[in-house]
Amino acid sequence: MSDATSPVIRRATRADGPAFLALVRALAEFEKLPPPDEAAEERLVEDAFGVEPRYELHVAELHGAVIAYAATFMAYSTFLARPTLYLEDLFVAPAARRRGVAAAMLHALEQIARARGCGRFEWTVLDWNVDAQKLYQGIGADLLPDWRVVRKKLG
Amino acid sequence: MSDATSPVIRRATRADGPAFLALVRALAEFEKLPPPDEAAEERLVEDAFGVEPRYELHVAELHGAVIAYAATFMAYSTFLARPTLYLEDLFVAPAARRRGVAAAMLHALEQIARARGCGRFEWTVLDWNVDAQKLYQGIGADLLPDWRVVRKKLG
Repeated sequence: MSDATSPVIRRATRADGPAFLALVRALAEFEKLPPPDEAAEERLVEDAFGVEPRYELHVAELHGAVIAYAATFMAYSTFLARPTLYLEDLFVAPAARRRGVAAAMLHALEQIARARGCGRFEWTVLDWNVDAQKLYQGIGADLLPDWRVVRKKLG
Repeated sequence: MSDATSPVIRRATRADGPAFLALVRALAEFEKLPPPDEAAEERLVEDAFGVEPRYELHVAELHGAVIAYAATFMAYSTFLARPTLYLEDLFVAPAARRRGVAAAMLHALEQIARARGCGRFEWTVLDWNVDAQKLYQGIGADLLPDWRVVRKKLG
């Protein structure tokens, strides 16, 4: 891949809000889910860029356009007594796929995790999403077969 | 259960450090895993009570003794645009089991999550740990069958 077609991965700023929200809407459309309403869009921006950030937003930019985002937060492993970088959400615009954008984003996030002294970089994948699983295993990640997510919905 | 045998659930303070570490060592013994070394024990205490907390520690106390701990941190759901309370670790001293301590801890944590406006209270369970799964489903939590944890070990 030449430099001209390599995305720049960087921390998002509030100026990226509209492009980020456009990708969130594209993700909802892609998954045939309802898009966030106006209040949820406002919360997403404030929770990323407001006075009390609740997650971190990273974007991939190519030729001046934001083509992907990753939402992360700092988790923790009591077993390792080390922080974990947790990847909550990664989305590449459908038109920008098959160019290594997801792999570039994962690589950049792994470097951030290492710089912060994390013992793990972690996320989840659907058990039928074999393409994604191959990508993840290709970068040295393990799928943990024995653990199940437990979720209590609130409110 | 009478009040006299109900544990008090509260946020841990640095003074709980030794009792917490004793439970961490008991957990390692229970799981036949090596206990944390001295450096890891120091990190666990500093990461809970130091200037840059990385997780929150809650304890259950009964008759003045710390009999259980829960380690949590604030996660985030971009789908809900709401914070998630994530339960990283919950351990009840073997001698204090079958008295509802885990359920009391989960209830207290759920109230904290609601007070913080969380959309979810979440954790993981081993797929063979049917007793724990029954407890979790009994308090209204769902097991998500389709998701797998992906982990890249670092360092």
